[in-house]
Amino acid sequence: MNKFDLKIVALAGGVGGAKLAEGLAQVLPPENLTIIVNTGDDFDHLGLRICPDLDTVCYTLAGIVNPDTGWGRADETWNALDNLETLGGPTWFRIGDKDLSTHLERTRRLNHGIRLSQITHEFCRSWGVLPMVIPMSDEVVSTKVYTDMGVMPFQEYFVQRKCQPSVKGFKFDGVEKSHSAPGILEAIELSDAILICPSNPWVSIDPILAVPRISSALAEKKVIAVSPIIGGLAVKGPAAKMFSDIGIQPSAFAVAQHYENLIKGFVFDQIDSGLIDKIFHLGISPYVTDSIMRTTEDRSRVAAEVLDFCTLLV
Amino acid sequence: MNKFDLKIVALAGGVGGAKLAEGLAQVLPPENLTIIVNTGDDFDHLGLRICPDLDTVCYTLAGIVNPDTGWGRADETWNALDNLETLGGPTWFRIGDKDLSTHLERTRRLNHGIRLSQITHEFCRSWGVLPMVIPMSDEVVSTKVYTDMGVMPFQEYFVQRKCQPSVKGFKFDGVEKSHSAPGILEAIELSDAILICPSNPWVSIDPILAVPRISSALAEKKVIAVSPIIGGLAVKGPAAKMFSDIGIQPSAFAVAQHYENLIKGFVFDQIDSGLIDKIFHLGISPYVTDSIMRTTEDRSRVAAEVLDFCTLLV
Repeated sequence: MNKFDLKIVALAGGVGGAKLAEGLAQVLPPENLTIIVNTGDDFDHLGLRICPDLDTVCYTLAGIVNPDTGWGRADETWNALDNLETLGGPTWFRIGDKDLSTHLERTRRLNHGIRLSQITHEFCRSWGVLPMVIPMSDEVVSTKVYTDMGVMPFQEYFVQRKCQPSVKGFKFDGVEKSHSAPGILEAIELSDAILICPSNPWVSIDPILAVPRISSALAEKKVIAVSPIIGGLAVKGPAAKMFSDIGIQPSAFAVAQHYENLIKGFVFDQIDSGLIDKIFHLGISPYVTDSIMRTTEDRSRVAAEVLDFCTLLV
Repeated sequence: MNKFDLKIVALAGGVGGAKLAEGLAQVLPPENLTIIVNTGDDFDHLGLRICPDLDTVCYTLAGIVNPDTGWGRADETWNALDNLETLGGPTWFRIGDKDLSTHLERTRRLNHGIRLSQITHEFCRSWGVLPMVIPMSDEVVSTKVYTDMGVMPFQEYFVQRKCQPSVKGFKFDGVEKSHSAPGILEAIELSDAILICPSNPWVSIDPILAVPRISSALAEKKVIAVSPIIGGLAVKGPAAKMFSDIGIQPSAFAVAQHYENLIKGFVFDQIDSGLIDKIFHLGISPYVTDSIMRTTEDRSRVAAEVLDFCTLLV
């Protein structure tokens, strides 16, 4: 099978996942790519519904993401937040002026009873995003972090407390009763392979995998994961620290073990090529490459390699 | 009595009222000035509570108003609205990025049960506004405009339809049961004179006068109005057109008649000095001056003259 003919469903969180998603969007025809995005990080703030991972993925695919941070908007201004600070309002969550109206308009539509998946679809059309981007569920699922300082919502752990508390575990409030958003089950059924993007396994991918119908649908499929851990470190975010806090040596191998019962193939960085045998002994096909995606070209190259690897497994 | 010792309560709507309020703030010690602001124009938009007159008055007193328009913020950016337009959101009401966060933070606090008057007080402190600015009521009062195209909320008439429909009358939904915001009755009781700023009589001042306890408290007081109509035209806004639509020749005299049972003194422009006798025959003391307030200096001069006129009447 030619890689361009593969029908792919990608599971993604924020910045790392968005980068591979962008690479896949460069390589695949848009109708062959569906990206299912974590919404466990979503929260209400300033009366607005904020969906950080969904926005990061959409902004990245639209080419309007801030290239320096990987999240938020390019050429952003901060006048609203500056005035909010003057007024003594909460500014710990950084929302630029362009970004703000995404939350405003999403919240306005949600309040009119429009589903998050429908809103996301319409936003993508406005931004010129061609692949299908679907939030994992239209229902509210809220990631909570168990820490040595108590249980807290993800954004409090991540942004307000800067990942300082030591993590003991996670729960995804509401996930047991949640339903996958419309189109997800069909996309999975029609897909040739499922790609788990290099996102945080604990808080970006696990919430998606915990949606009951998604989890059962994936059991039938060839799943390939790309490691977010390179040389024992997370490219971005707290994934490595979470492994350590929980008592697991952070490594690409730990990521492969995390997904052990789910994946058939595992892509990781050449710096970790010493792990090839260990991955193989988990019953997982290893694929090693230069997996750091700094540039647009890196992303399409990694995506193309991952897709070529998929053609060998499906 | 020296004009600097006068305790003044000013009733104000938007741009015109804000200009005289700013003049008064330049002349009077802050503890001698209370500004009661119309909230009949307030409305919900994009999930936010927007108080156009209150913001215009506060921004003007804070020196952060857009000097070209008289409303909104100086040095404003429009990134949020531009992105909202891309998303197909409603952009007929022009909200800049700085302005936006005022509505966000106000809405956030209202949702926490904080009263509008308290929020306004806190915002004024943040912006360095020293005189007391009080919304006419903490309860929702909504100005509706009866027109040849039906009854419509004020902002629909004013902004969306650009004052095109012919006006037949007004109602202020909720005003009969509304209570004046805390501090208003005390300020009126302690005041030496009440100034009706050069705001739209129909939709800026009448809603304030329709709050039951305000109306009864004013009956005991010396009230002086400043005409918003100069040479038959409104300096800004639809006041003259409203008089015409209703079948009254727009003029400073029509304004004096509008307030006939309430006011003891009336300030109007020198261009209308031919009306002096007619005003006098209403039993109202006339005062004529150059009443157009283009510059900061104009505003303090007009305010000082109005206050000198007050000293003659109280």
